[in-house]
Amino acid sequence: MANPTAAMLVIGDEILSGRTHDTNSNFLARELTKHGIGLREIRVVSDHQPAIVAGLNALREAYDNVFTSGGIGPTHDDITADAIAAAFGVHIDIRQDAYDILAEHYAASGAVFNEARQRMARIPDGATLIDNPITAAPGFTIGNVHVMAGVPNVFQAMVASVIPTLTGGDPVLSQTLRINRGEGEIAGPLGELAKDYPELSIGSYPFAHEGSYGANIVIRGIDAGQIDRAMARLAALFPEVGG
Amino acid sequence: MANPTAAMLVIGDEILSGRTHDTNSNFLARELTKHGIGLREIRVVSDHQPAIVAGLNALREAYDNVFTSGGIGPTHDDITADAIAAAFGVHIDIRQDAYDILAEHYAASGAVFNEARQRMARIPDGATLIDNPITAAPGFTIGNVHVMAGVPNVFQAMVASVIPTLTGGDPVLSQTLRINRGEGEIAGPLGELAKDYPELSIGSYPFAHEGSYGANIVIRGIDAGQIDRAMARLAALFPEVGG
Repeated sequence: MANPTAAMLVIGDEILSGRTHDTNSNFLARELTKHGIGLREIRVVSDHQPAIVAGLNALREAYDNVFTSGGIGPTHDDITADAIAAAFGVHIDIRQDAYDILAEHYAASGAVFNEARQRMARIPDGATLIDNPITAAPGFTIGNVHVMAGVPNVFQAMVASVIPTLTGGDPVLSQTLRINRGEGEIAGPLGELAKDYPELSIGSYPFAHEGSYGANIVIRGIDAGQIDRAMARLAALFPEVGG
Repeated sequence: MANPTAAMLVIGDEILSGRTHDTNSNFLARELTKHGIGLREIRVVSDHQPAIVAGLNALREAYDNVFTSGGIGPTHDDITADAIAAAFGVHIDIRQDAYDILAEHYAASGAVFNEARQRMARIPDGATLIDNPITAAPGFTIGNVHVMAGVPNVFQAMVASVIPTLTGGDPVLSQTLRINRGEGEIAGPLGELAKDYPELSIGSYPFAHEGSYGANIVIRGIDAGQIDRAMARLAALFPEVGG
C-alpha cells in the first residue's frame, strides 16, 4: 500500500511580506519523511478568513493529513481557530477543558487570565486538544486537520505530540552521491538510470561554490536493497566522484 | 486602486522531503513588497506534472502575477517547462534564440553542448526569455507567469530582470515596535487600535528568548502619515516599551 500523504497550510501575513522566514514547514517535512508520511504540498496563505478556508478545504480533501501553523494566539490577527470552524461548518466557543488548562497556567505564573488570553480556549466543536508543553495554549485536531502554533519551538513540541498518533508508512530512505561534474554532463546517463528504477525517486541538485561545482544526486525509496543497487550503478557511471 | 497581486509556485521534491530549505520565496516576498506588489499565496508542489499544472492554473487565474522556481535544468527530473506548456495548452520545443544563447555559452566554456543541455532551450510557444547572467540557461515569461531557476543566485538574478518590467503599486511601508509584555496583556488595547485603522495591517509577532519575552508589533500600510499616527498611539498605550 502507498504511504499516507500530508499537506501543510502555513497561515500568516508575516511570511508573505518576507518579514519572517518560515522554518516550520522544513521541520515538519523532515519529521514526516522519518515517519513514512509523504508531504505532497505546502501552501502559505494570509491572515484572511476566506483564504484560510479555501486552502484548508482543498488540502483536507486531497490529502490524508493536513497540518497548519500560525494564528492561534491571543491577538486580533489570530483568526485560525475561527477559520477552521468555518471551513468545517461547526460551532466554536470557549471550551471548558482548554479554559481549565489556561486558567491553571496563568494562576501558576501570576499573570491575569484576561479576555484576550481566554480567546485561546476557543476550540471548534468535535476537536481534540493537542498538548502545548511550552506555553500551555493548546492546538487541536479536527477531522484530518492538526492545528498548531506558529512559534517554532511550540510548533515543534506539538508536532512531537501529534506524529506518534498518526498511521505512518515505510520510512523513506535516501542516499546521496556528490558528483563533481556539471549537471549537463551527467544528465544523459542519469536519466537512463532513473528509467531503470521507476520505483525510486532520483533527484539531481546542482551546486556551485567558490569555483567548485557539480551535483548531489539523491536516490530515495523504501527498499534499501534497491537503493543500494541503483547507487552502485550510479557510482560506476561516474567513477571519479568526490566526497 | 489596489496594489497588484502575486503568487509563487515552488517546484521540487527536495523542498517537500525537507532536504532543501526554500529561500527563494522569502527573497521574492521582500522584493515584491518593495515594489508594491502583494504576495498573497505560496504553494510548494512536487516534480510531478499534474501537481504543477493544477497549482499553476489555480494561481495564474487568481493573481495578477505568478512566479515559479525550480525544475528548468538539464536532468530528467527537470519537467517544469513542459508542465507550463501543458498548463497553457501550447506547443513546446527547442527554440532558436534560447539554443543560440546556450550554444555560445558552452562554446565559450569549452563544454560539450550535448542533448541534455539542449533540453534547456525548450521554451513554450509564445513565451519571452528571461535573462540568466549566471549560467546562461534562460527562464521565460508566458502570460502572467514568470518561470525561473531554483538555484538561489540564478533565481535572484532572474527576479532582478523581471521585476522592473512589472506594474508596481505603492510601496508597502512598515514600522515595528518591540513591546516587552506578553501578547495576552497587550491584545485587548491592540485589537481596539486595529479597529480604528482598518486600512492598516497590524500584526503581533511574539518572541521569547533567554528569559525575555514580548511581541513585535508591525504596522503596515501605504500611507506614511497614517502609520505614524497609529504608531504614536501604540507607543502611548505601552509607554514603558524597550528597543
